[in-house]
Amino acid sequence: MPEVVGNMLIAQSGGPTCAINASVAGAVEEAGRHPDLIGEIYGGRNGILGILNEDLIDLQEEKRSAIEGLRYTPAATLGTCRYKIHFITDEQLAQAKDDKEREKLLKRRVQAASDMDQLFEVFQAHNIRYFFYAGGNDSQDTSLKIHEEAVKRGWDMRVIGIPKTIDNDLPHTDHCPGYGSVIKYNATTVMEVGIDVGSMATDDGSVCIIEVMGRSAGWIAAGTALAKRGNPANPPHIILFPEIQYDLAHFLNKVREAVAAYKYCVIVVGEGIKNKEGKEIGADETKRDAFGHAVLAGAAWKLKELIEAALQTKTRTVLLGYAQRAAAHCASLTDVTEAAACGEAAVRAAVSGQSGYMVKLIRESSAPYKWSTALHDLREVANVEHFVPREWISEDGFMTNEQFLEYASPLIAGEVRAPMENGLPKYVVLEGLPVEKKLAPRA
Amino acid sequence: MPEVVGNMLIAQSGGPTCAINASVAGAVEEAGRHPDLIGEIYGGRNGILGILNEDLIDLQEEKRSAIEGLRYTPAATLGTCRYKIHFITDEQLAQAKDDKEREKLLKRRVQAASDMDQLFEVFQAHNIRYFFYAGGNDSQDTSLKIHEEAVKRGWDMRVIGIPKTIDNDLPHTDHCPGYGSVIKYNATTVMEVGIDVGSMATDDGSVCIIEVMGRSAGWIAAGTALAKRGNPANPPHIILFPEIQYDLAHFLNKVREAVAAYKYCVIVVGEGIKNKEGKEIGADETKRDAFGHAVLAGAAWKLKELIEAALQTKTRTVLLGYAQRAAAHCASLTDVTEAAACGEAAVRAAVSGQSGYMVKLIRESSAPYKWSTALHDLREVANVEHFVPREWISEDGFMTNEQFLEYASPLIAGEVRAPMENGLPKYVVLEGLPVEKKLAPRA
Repeated sequence: MPEVVGNMLIAQSGGPTCAINASVAGAVEEAGRHPDLIGEIYGGRNGILGILNEDLIDLQEEKRSAIEGLRYTPAATLGTCRYKIHFITDEQLAQAKDDKEREKLLKRRVQAASDMDQLFEVFQAHNIRYFFYAGGNDSQDTSLKIHEEAVKRGWDMRVIGIPKTIDNDLPHTDHCPGYGSVIKYNATTVMEVGIDVGSMATDDGSVCIIEVMGRSAGWIAAGTALAKRGNPANPPHIILFPEIQYDLAHFLNKVREAVAAYKYCVIVVGEGIKNKEGKEIGADETKRDAFGHAVLAGAAWKLKELIEAALQTKTRTVLLGYAQRAAAHCASLTDVTEAAACGEAAVRAAVSGQSGYMVKLIRESSAPYKWSTALHDLREVANVEHFVPREWISEDGFMTNEQFLEYASPLIAGEVRAPMENGLPKYVVLEGLPVEKKLAPRA
Repeated sequence: MPEVVGNMLIAQSGGPTCAINASVAGAVEEAGRHPDLIGEIYGGRNGILGILNEDLIDLQEEKRSAIEGLRYTPAATLGTCRYKIHFITDEQLAQAKDDKEREKLLKRRVQAASDMDQLFEVFQAHNIRYFFYAGGNDSQDTSLKIHEEAVKRGWDMRVIGIPKTIDNDLPHTDHCPGYGSVIKYNATTVMEVGIDVGSMATDDGSVCIIEVMGRSAGWIAAGTALAKRGNPANPPHIILFPEIQYDLAHFLNKVREAVAAYKYCVIVVGEGIKNKEGKEIGADETKRDAFGHAVLAGAAWKLKELIEAALQTKTRTVLLGYAQRAAAHCASLTDVTEAAACGEAAVRAAVSGQSGYMVKLIRESSAPYKWSTALHDLREVANVEHFVPREWISEDGFMTNEQFLEYASPLIAGEVRAPMENGLPKYVVLEGLPVEKKLAPRA
């Protein structure tokens, strides 16, 4: 494509991680190296939601040290949102099970078209010619739709998706920025909790269940296997993956064996694990919340009840929740470096005329670990989920094997040390100077 | 007291912390400076339980680097136990509500006497003349009883208790080793989770509840107020203390206010918090576990149900559990330094002829922070619990005030950096060479 001169807009979407800001830092720094093509550098507040409301901030007005400090600052500094543009395909419409659903889908299609109009009004009002969106599956789909729409409308704009998700479930990329840090923190925690529980273990035995994120893919749970450091006696003794349907009697036997062997047992469980009927263990179908949804009492809690009933062994639970994806104090330097590189690569691709791609990470070798970035067509990325390969999990389904460890090991290497102030990390908060609005407020 | 020459025994008791090993390091290193008085240096495995079984290890056989490394190694390296010697007083016997309870108490008294005999057989068999016990309330009581028994039996032995508890509920000491590290980690976590939840906060609001340890004292919950760093907009927005009985309608109003002001609300809750009737919120009286105890579903879980029903606001929970007391990767240098100093002070006191004391920390000034160690009579320590003073909590009961912050601030200063290996901390594991047994196995 010929060169285009104009302004840049970057936004973040989906669940925050402690590496997603590094991608913004990388992109903004790289943009600064192309003043001939990129004029203003804007950030969209709260993802697509802020852009729809023309809620932009001027990243050129931030201190260089603040942009640099984004490399060690957790969460989405530009803000993120749960708002989703529902692009309804003809196929989805045809599959609607009744008129009511068909009507709902049609309404969503109209809303999506209206949202798209609004986005392009904002892009055009601010002469946005470079658009970067960091996020997971849904966000890559949004990037694809924006790219296609730009082509259709003849609005000359480069659109590149930047991968981000602790879930590590994007396809085609070797791994996702955000993943290395979450498993570094979780493996550290499993190691420490393991030493704690082990030091209390006497003849009556002791069990601790640590629940980690991952509703459908077990990458996060799998990563805690690094805490074993090659010794079967080290925790975690059991990992439960959402990809596998478990026979709970079989599971209880594994716990019994570990307690017999080590006097304690540390279990890591992905939040979405299922029983042999394929039902989520953490879902309590008998109880409904204020919205009428089945209450998720939590997989760890359910397993605790089972173990205490079957084994009469004291069982404690840890639920890391948001703490695991926000733990910048224990981030992986490899992860943060790669996240920044993905931001840089996105801008380099765009200024060289590419559009409609997601940046991906390529592994050149595991030992020594060598990697690079490349581009992948967004049409092959959107809405495809990537699971832990069955052959990376032990035959009995309760642990990863060497192949996984070789994959995951390099991703947690190196430490990020944020500056400290009064005993706590000093994270960056952006000034966030608003860009003057040019459109009438959206109805 | 005149000088006594003989061997030393040190053991750990109660819940592990990430500073209790530093006390062992301090004590062992100090003992090495008194070779004229202290011969062998033994560690008792799994607290009193291991000593009863003559399960001792030879700490002189450990590498100096391993003892030094205990300063950054979490949990109880010598092992700990839940076993308790029940010393039954005449008063307790007189208060027994029926014959059955009286019989149970009498049985415990007989067991305690038998345990005491066994302990002194071990002390005498190994010529133990210096005994150090690191632990919380129960352990200080055990130290007192052992000291009194030694005097009664005419066994010339120095007994000094070393304070240790993340709960910070020992009396007479300014604070307890282990406390500074747990609140440094918890405040860091609250800060990070707060940035995460805040970055996702849009108009629909968002709530996150973080449950921390503390069944009866709110010191651990209180410590997370440090994450506010003087800004009311910063999380935590609400802290619930076990010392206070809460009107839940009042609490829900506070949540509503925070969501209105900041679009999100981070709540920290001590596990033992109570409603206005004084009943533990986390206890589910309708449900009993395998042992017949009321199931503690957890305070955070109960509050989540309440908030979602009343405010229709998405509410997530984090349950830090054992992770918080084992988090050596985020330990406070001040805490670990003080813990080591308590170990040293215990040995110095003992070799200078003192017995029947607990080491305590004295605060000389808060700004600049200056501290020293001293001794306190064990008779005044045992079984007294120390709560957060009501005047350090805001009038409405939902936050600490300046007095608490002045108290807690210096305790989290400085970082402990364990050596790293393949992206994870490299903690010390002792060789644990067993000391040859001299007694017949206990019946």
